[in-house]
Amino acid sequence: MDSVKINVNPGETYKVKDLISKADVDAFGIITRGLLFTADESATVGEDGVEFISKEEALSVLRHSASHLMAQAVKNLFPGTKLGIGPAIENGFYYDMLIPEGLTEADLTRIEEEMVRLSKESLPVERQVMTKEDAKKLFQSLNEPFKVELIEEIEGDYVTVYRQGEFVDLCRGPHVNNTGLIKHFKLLSISGAYWRGDENREQLTRIYGTCFWTSDELEEFLHNLEEAERRDHRKLGKQLDLFSINEDIGPGLILWHPNGAVIRKEIEDFWRQSHIDNGYQLVYTPHVARTKLWEISGHLSFYKENMFPSMELENQSYLVKPMNCPFHVQIYKTKTRSYKELPIRFAELGTVYRFERSGVLHGLLRVRGFTQDDAHIFCAREQVEEEVEKVLDMALGIYRLFGFEDLRIELSVRDPKNKDKYVGDDDVWELAESALSGALKARDLDFTVAEGEAKFYGPAIDIKVKDALGRYWQGPTIQVDFNLPRRFNMKYTGQDGLEHEPVMIHRALLGSLERFFALLIEQYSGWFPLWVAPEQVRILPITEDQMQYAQSVAEGLKEFRVKLDTDTGSKLGYRIRRGQTEKVPYMLVVGSKEVESGVVSVRHGVKGDLGQMSLDEFKSMIKEEIENKVHL
Amino acid sequence: MDSVKINVNPGETYKVKDLISKADVDAFGIITRGLLFTADESATVGEDGVEFISKEEALSVLRHSASHLMAQAVKNLFPGTKLGIGPAIENGFYYDMLIPEGLTEADLTRIEEEMVRLSKESLPVERQVMTKEDAKKLFQSLNEPFKVELIEEIEGDYVTVYRQGEFVDLCRGPHVNNTGLIKHFKLLSISGAYWRGDENREQLTRIYGTCFWTSDELEEFLHNLEEAERRDHRKLGKQLDLFSINEDIGPGLILWHPNGAVIRKEIEDFWRQSHIDNGYQLVYTPHVARTKLWEISGHLSFYKENMFPSMELENQSYLVKPMNCPFHVQIYKTKTRSYKELPIRFAELGTVYRFERSGVLHGLLRVRGFTQDDAHIFCAREQVEEEVEKVLDMALGIYRLFGFEDLRIELSVRDPKNKDKYVGDDDVWELAESALSGALKARDLDFTVAEGEAKFYGPAIDIKVKDALGRYWQGPTIQVDFNLPRRFNMKYTGQDGLEHEPVMIHRALLGSLERFFALLIEQYSGWFPLWVAPEQVRILPITEDQMQYAQSVAEGLKEFRVKLDTDTGSKLGYRIRRGQTEKVPYMLVVGSKEVESGVVSVRHGVKGDLGQMSLDEFKSMIKEEIENKVHL
Repeated sequence: MDSVKINVNPGETYKVKDLISKADVDAFGIITRGLLFTADESATVGEDGVEFISKEEALSVLRHSASHLMAQAVKNLFPGTKLGIGPAIENGFYYDMLIPEGLTEADLTRIEEEMVRLSKESLPVERQVMTKEDAKKLFQSLNEPFKVELIEEIEGDYVTVYRQGEFVDLCRGPHVNNTGLIKHFKLLSISGAYWRGDENREQLTRIYGTCFWTSDELEEFLHNLEEAERRDHRKLGKQLDLFSINEDIGPGLILWHPNGAVIRKEIEDFWRQSHIDNGYQLVYTPHVARTKLWEISGHLSFYKENMFPSMELENQSYLVKPMNCPFHVQIYKTKTRSYKELPIRFAELGTVYRFERSGVLHGLLRVRGFTQDDAHIFCAREQVEEEVEKVLDMALGIYRLFGFEDLRIELSVRDPKNKDKYVGDDDVWELAESALSGALKARDLDFTVAEGEAKFYGPAIDIKVKDALGRYWQGPTIQVDFNLPRRFNMKYTGQDGLEHEPVMIHRALLGSLERFFALLIEQYSGWFPLWVAPEQVRILPITEDQMQYAQSVAEGLKEFRVKLDTDTGSKLGYRIRRGQTEKVPYMLVVGSKEVESGVVSVRHGVKGDLGQMSLDEFKSMIKEEIENKVHL
Repeated sequence: MDSVKINVNPGETYKVKDLISKADVDAFGIITRGLLFTADESATVGEDGVEFISKEEALSVLRHSASHLMAQAVKNLFPGTKLGIGPAIENGFYYDMLIPEGLTEADLTRIEEEMVRLSKESLPVERQVMTKEDAKKLFQSLNEPFKVELIEEIEGDYVTVYRQGEFVDLCRGPHVNNTGLIKHFKLLSISGAYWRGDENREQLTRIYGTCFWTSDELEEFLHNLEEAERRDHRKLGKQLDLFSINEDIGPGLILWHPNGAVIRKEIEDFWRQSHIDNGYQLVYTPHVARTKLWEISGHLSFYKENMFPSMELENQSYLVKPMNCPFHVQIYKTKTRSYKELPIRFAELGTVYRFERSGVLHGLLRVRGFTQDDAHIFCAREQVEEEVEKVLDMALGIYRLFGFEDLRIELSVRDPKNKDKYVGDDDVWELAESALSGALKARDLDFTVAEGEAKFYGPAIDIKVKDALGRYWQGPTIQVDFNLPRRFNMKYTGQDGLEHEPVMIHRALLGSLERFFALLIEQYSGWFPLWVAPEQVRILPITEDQMQYAQSVAEGLKEFRVKLDTDTGSKLGYRIRRGQTEKVPYMLVVGSKEVESGVVSVRHGVKGDLGQMSLDEFKSMIKEEIENKVHL
């Protein structure tokens, strides 16, 4: 929070609420004597005065205190435990400990119970300042070698420790003033972690947990966590037979199975048509090129460690491409360009390969091979703003189509104090930055400006999209580039008959098909919009007697992706559950009654029973759903 | 020709015609004394008797003799010339010579004139047998070091030389009996060639020429040659801005420009829909994979020199893929497969990379990166024939669609005497071979059987397609594979509940999109069928006065690929010629008369003026042309 000063008398006790109203700030509580007091409490103020704290900051303090409480509980249950470090992190906290007995997920309940007991004891928390020498002796006597190691590396003469009951920890704080405030917590998982991240040091047990101020918040978080696990694209990818990663092919390299490929093809077809309709020209470029190309582009000097290693062929060095841009530049350069042709917009679903350490690879989200929905716009300076507006329209349109309305937009501009770091003239930077912000304003979009966050070659717009669980995903990017046109000596003949340098705009809407696919899977938890669903309709004849009718229904629906379930030997309930598990949007049950009346009984995977209707009614219903690209 | 023996008396003279009719063979002439006599001539028969010769063989002899005649002419004009070798080749002949003065294309006319003179002299040609020692002395005296070198390497004691006038050449023959028979020839081009193909030896001048028995045949050939040059896909590729190859990206790697990409996209869309309609499932797979994959597949042991070199990443070796098959196998293997699922058909437009020496690279025809229209069918043994029939139907359908009706089909089977060379059991080979031939017969297709031409892993059908110039291009291939299913331990559960090995069929219809594109460009000399044409309609307002009307016409045609020619400053004739050069199928000229009557004047690029029609008439005409995928 912004610092607010009010006059208080050290040693005197105040109602926190009064202090907050006196200061006229929107605070959750105060910090004094290294301790957090909430608005409902009274606090005896220390020599250090009062610092107001926001709800967000207070949550982080609470979680940090929860990690202490957990450590205290573990030490009570496993007395030989030696403590590492235990910080608050995004969404919770962890503590790294050396537990001689080891630990399993089953132990987490016992630890939680001990934490509840310690919380109910309402132990006051105290901060104590001591000399490093005293602290070292203290933790040596407590047999805490990691703490001793930490103390030795702390600069200055003094350190602080926090105590609650018999538990004491080396800590900078702040912490809540009483363990009774730590009520709504949950331990989540265990993993291994090397002491100080060094694989030559001791391997510790890391326990993850989370904590909130209210039970509602905790429950919502745990619900979302469960939802996120249920929607995990890796899990659903397997369950719905969408994609796989294969040890013999290599980590981070995706095999799109037929079901996943249906969705990809539908999206690709839509993407290509949208781009053609919006004045883009499609191109195709190879996946390997001479290293020389990347020398010219400059990537070799600043991007080499993200590239696959080079290949030597007839004394020429080649690289698998990590990006498509220089290829599009080379197509631009195959002929003399006139201002009349501008803007030139080249679009490609270009598959690129980048080196990511195997440790950071994650399903479809962090991969080594992915297809960018890439395009490059080459235009005159004065066309930048209009082009960016058009890109924004396309970007928002495509996300809206899939039900993403909530965006977080950031405009990355130069650090005005460090203009030397950037290529391109001052005037063209100013023009581009104002073109980008102008376009955002013209579309009435809220955005934050991140000074100094621009790449060296130009300003950019980055958009994050919020999913159904409130998580933000990397979305469209629009980057202006003054560097490549110069490096490749790109030109166009202006109306004045002179040569000019075009501005280059890089843009991707979906980012990568792989990442976008992960987003879709998790957003819809596998209940894809009908227009992309791999299997749109399944027909379930109840017995063999309805097979002929079921076949005629299938025949009538052949323009859709339809399957006939011939497994009449199994019970209908089982077959419907199977269809649910396989997330088939529509199941048509046909029994003797349906045959008699010449109808179908329609069951929607999410909406449930939709009753009987004629095949024509059903067809026109789903046709409309497909044409309008409806999502759930 | 099959050898035919008839009784003749050496030394006696016969009419060749009589000998042919006596032997009752369909021959063009005879060979005796190492000389060719045509059916119109009389021949004095030698001790070696008479050999009948087909028209095809006779043409090759004539061309060989033409190469001698050319060498004689060159030696007359450039007396210091030293002769290398001068064989007949497909479509003509060449002679490699060391010409101290050098040679330019302009000299070819002089040489031709000298050949005409020597032909008119009707010099008799004679064969002479001599000892190698005598021959060596002869060619040493003639100052022909290359001939001396050749003689030294010939096995046996004797060689033959051919003489005509003062010219003498070391030659096995046969030759025509008189230079007067060499009438219809043409010298075509000059290139350099190292003596014996060894770059450490002398560089010689190679003169290419051709020769026919009749002027009609020569003229047709020259016409086709000119046509082929006019249609050369490299030339048209540049002229129509379809594609390019870039030095900085690398040889054999294709950039598809917007115009080429339109055509590719139309073909790809059609291809994908056809495959979905025919029960294929699309998949997408990466372009790199661990070297291990290729160890399992076995490619590393027999295909390595055609692959790009490997890349090391975190102690794993990776390769850019030269084929898609093992990826499809891995998708098959991600779950247990039942006989109920078979046949499984995975299709992918998969871009692969293969190492070809830069010397053999040629436009779109021999490249290093290309997109296969690949598919793999996994089926039970008893399904092979039906699957092959379906593939044949698709293959013929797609070529017919583009106007290729004339096919040359080869069935490659095992060498029955060398069964050990092949993997797979005897019974499955027999089954597969008979399935392939059965499918061809079921479709009433003529084919030749090539014994011993099968790959080690299974029999195959190869289809070549004939283009408008009578040239054959590599077309669809269908290969049965018993190897990969075994190497990857592929299985399916049969109706008997036991595990069985599926048969794998590799098939490509277009082969590669690059090669097929080259074929299309040359077949249509750039006048692509309307449904794939990059620009389908161009509207030409004669003056600015018709601009508004022209725009409304363009608006009315916006479902098509339409452009408005706004260059009213240039003359109409010039603008129409430009449209012709750019091979725009339809040009709509609108002047004041058209505006008045509310029509358009339609001009087809090949068919010429089609007169005036209403916009609706024009639209329904071209709509039909597009829907029916009409080609010229």
